[in-house]
Amino acid sequence: MSSDRSSSEPTVGVSVAIGELNLHAGRTVRLHGWVRNLRSSGKILFVILRDGTGEVQVVVARDEVDSDSWETAQALTYECSVMVDGLVREEARAPSGYEVTGRRLRLVGPSPDFPIQPKEHGTDFLLQNRHLWLRSRRQIAIMRVRDEVVRAIRDFFHERGYILVDTPILTGAIGESAGTLFETEYFDLGPAYLAQTGQLYLEAAAAALGKVYCFGPTFRAEKSKTRRHLAEFWMVEPEVAWLDSEGNMALQEEFVCFIVDRVLENRRGELAVLERDIERLEAVRPPFDRISYTEAVEELRRRGSEIEWGADLGAEEETLIAEGRSAPVFIYDYPREAKAFYMKESPEDPRTVKCDDLIAPEGYGEIIGGSQREDDYDRLLTRIREEGLPEEAYDWYLDLRRYGTFPHSGFGLGLERTVAWICGVPHLREAIAFPRLMTRLKP
Amino acid sequence: MSSDRSSSEPTVGVSVAIGELNLHAGRTVRLHGWVRNLRSSGKILFVILRDGTGEVQVVVARDEVDSDSWETAQALTYECSVMVDGLVREEARAPSGYEVTGRRLRLVGPSPDFPIQPKEHGTDFLLQNRHLWLRSRRQIAIMRVRDEVVRAIRDFFHERGYILVDTPILTGAIGESAGTLFETEYFDLGPAYLAQTGQLYLEAAAAALGKVYCFGPTFRAEKSKTRRHLAEFWMVEPEVAWLDSEGNMALQEEFVCFIVDRVLENRRGELAVLERDIERLEAVRPPFDRISYTEAVEELRRRGSEIEWGADLGAEEETLIAEGRSAPVFIYDYPREAKAFYMKESPEDPRTVKCDDLIAPEGYGEIIGGSQREDDYDRLLTRIREEGLPEEAYDWYLDLRRYGTFPHSGFGLGLERTVAWICGVPHLREAIAFPRLMTRLKP
Repeated sequence: MSSDRSSSEPTVGVSVAIGELNLHAGRTVRLHGWVRNLRSSGKILFVILRDGTGEVQVVVARDEVDSDSWETAQALTYECSVMVDGLVREEARAPSGYEVTGRRLRLVGPSPDFPIQPKEHGTDFLLQNRHLWLRSRRQIAIMRVRDEVVRAIRDFFHERGYILVDTPILTGAIGESAGTLFETEYFDLGPAYLAQTGQLYLEAAAAALGKVYCFGPTFRAEKSKTRRHLAEFWMVEPEVAWLDSEGNMALQEEFVCFIVDRVLENRRGELAVLERDIERLEAVRPPFDRISYTEAVEELRRRGSEIEWGADLGAEEETLIAEGRSAPVFIYDYPREAKAFYMKESPEDPRTVKCDDLIAPEGYGEIIGGSQREDDYDRLLTRIREEGLPEEAYDWYLDLRRYGTFPHSGFGLGLERTVAWICGVPHLREAIAFPRLMTRLKP
Repeated sequence: MSSDRSSSEPTVGVSVAIGELNLHAGRTVRLHGWVRNLRSSGKILFVILRDGTGEVQVVVARDEVDSDSWETAQALTYECSVMVDGLVREEARAPSGYEVTGRRLRLVGPSPDFPIQPKEHGTDFLLQNRHLWLRSRRQIAIMRVRDEVVRAIRDFFHERGYILVDTPILTGAIGESAGTLFETEYFDLGPAYLAQTGQLYLEAAAAALGKVYCFGPTFRAEKSKTRRHLAEFWMVEPEVAWLDSEGNMALQEEFVCFIVDRVLENRRGELAVLERDIERLEAVRPPFDRISYTEAVEELRRRGSEIEWGADLGAEEETLIAEGRSAPVFIYDYPREAKAFYMKESPEDPRTVKCDDLIAPEGYGEIIGGSQREDDYDRLLTRIREEGLPEEAYDWYLDLRRYGTFPHSGFGLGLERTVAWICGVPHLREAIAFPRLMTRLKP
């Protein structure tokens, strides 16, 4: 306990975290944590204790502890919580380099029949017990990688002078395709929709602050059961005034390399727990290949695909293009019909728009979608009408082209897809603490 | 433009941001930005140009620019966007220390009759034009303070080893009082509710990772029109294993001081724009006063209030308690009935729970609510039943007391209330880019 006023136990050593044991070698300390594993050899019990900051083996010998402690030790089970007073010893054979000789042991919370045992469990069972599954070594490693990815993302933009602008979840205007929106009654104003993107709002903010980004949850009520979809996922979206599509791709390249580098720098141990092939991540180096949509279609057809120019690229085509490439690859300038209304018409070929998708290697698919935005009032209005979108909902968005319009670009990176790729986990559901799937809303 | 491939203008100087002009004194540069203000003296036009990173005066003299540029300059209006080539000069009288002598000027986007002019506008009008209002000096300053507050919050927890765990927005189980929840249909699973807190999920994560926090949007469908309520607002919530209520208050104190210090360190200019009394912020120093609920009631009654022991404290009572205190003040150990079901029963007085509210000075009210959580299975179940909550929705939450229960505490800090207080703005609607009010969902 960080404060001892309400504790009834006398303090025999300072309370420390397992991750800091290296600072306390040779001293008696107090640990609080959960029992990860147990092994007994009659007179000695080996307890693997974890506390969120790390794991350590506590050696409890019958001859070296009081009888209460020994009795407690005999009754320990997976995931019960305990308090341990013990001596920190350097131990070269231990994964952390330290071991603790137990002096005193107290049970805090029992854990009879912890549902998740060291054996194989079905996915449904694990998801149903997600609140307990999170305690497993692998899930902890993924959560720590996710934390580092988020930190890297925020550092990247902060260091480059971007201002965070949180965009609303409850929206009247809608960014992308309707029909996959969650809807809720908003007081007396009728329905509100849960945002699929913050981009339109960010464009307004970019005219005020220059370089901005948002980073929050987004929602898709898509009836999809694939391993690459979640109903609720986090997306980071930068928006940059005076940046064109070329510069946008350069920004994305720098950004993705920065994230991967930071995980390699700070989360080696977690990647080892996940048995991630580090070399695959070390191969993520600039420059990333850039191929136009038109070139991609030609390449796909050469390789046997029957795709026609004009059709969007699906997961299958993306995987094919990424094959044989060790770094992510850009596909740029898609046909207008395949993309959202707000993308800028290409001056070189008005059938296409100035956009890009960034495809991760190893079959992880699209992790970024970006574009230069249409900054011409008339062309944007035409596109809104062509798409049959409710014009009045976009009047404020059109204002941005009415008052001091400016070339600008941005992109969205899906957090869970990026985390899944970096961790090498096949399904997005493990890349977020409490996944929301079509068939799962609990816990 | 960060890449010149699509630019039709020849480059005469490197493109730079106004905030970096100090690095380019004596050189010719290219600026992109919006016209904040204009002043003419016949043959010379003084243009205040802004680009999100700063503002600078551009001096355009008829005799020193080509005729196209002069003609363009004559037609400039508020908030039109322009490209300027010019010479950077040190100028002691300029707020930024620099001025630019214009050489060439091009209009990028006109801005006829920009709706927000340098005069008083009504609040409704400004909110309706929030996408344009954001460009004002004052709103930019608030957004930059908000950015710094968020950065400080994330740094604080990161530096102390907390792991970010993003908790779900779409939830089955509910944290606090029902009746103020936004609801949406969730596929075939019935209604989902927009989360009012991530706390319950964080408690599960704390058992896995020790020290965790979430930071995301939260929702209240409260029919309230006060200046201290938003339907959608951001909240940061740490949750700490093995921390008791005393330690929780110490953490909050350190946290709030850290945030205020960081704004004072990095956003002096913005606070000056906002005409914030810096001394009021500098007075936010530990230790904060801590008074129990019971003492608060006594103090209030001495000062004429008719409040009875047992009733919750409202905004009026909070303001009264904060009066005459220059730093925030803790009120702790409220009556059980006034608080949420998950708070730990006080061992010293079972009529109360181990919790605290932190009240900001200057009438800004509660910015933090925190508590030690009930870690006893039976007592928690009793409370869930007493409150008439759907027991089956909380089975997973009860599991945390079934398997290795542990003392733990946490709190929630409202971002907009904190930003409003630090900026000295009376209404929360200015503390977020696109406020969601009972009567406003757009833009």
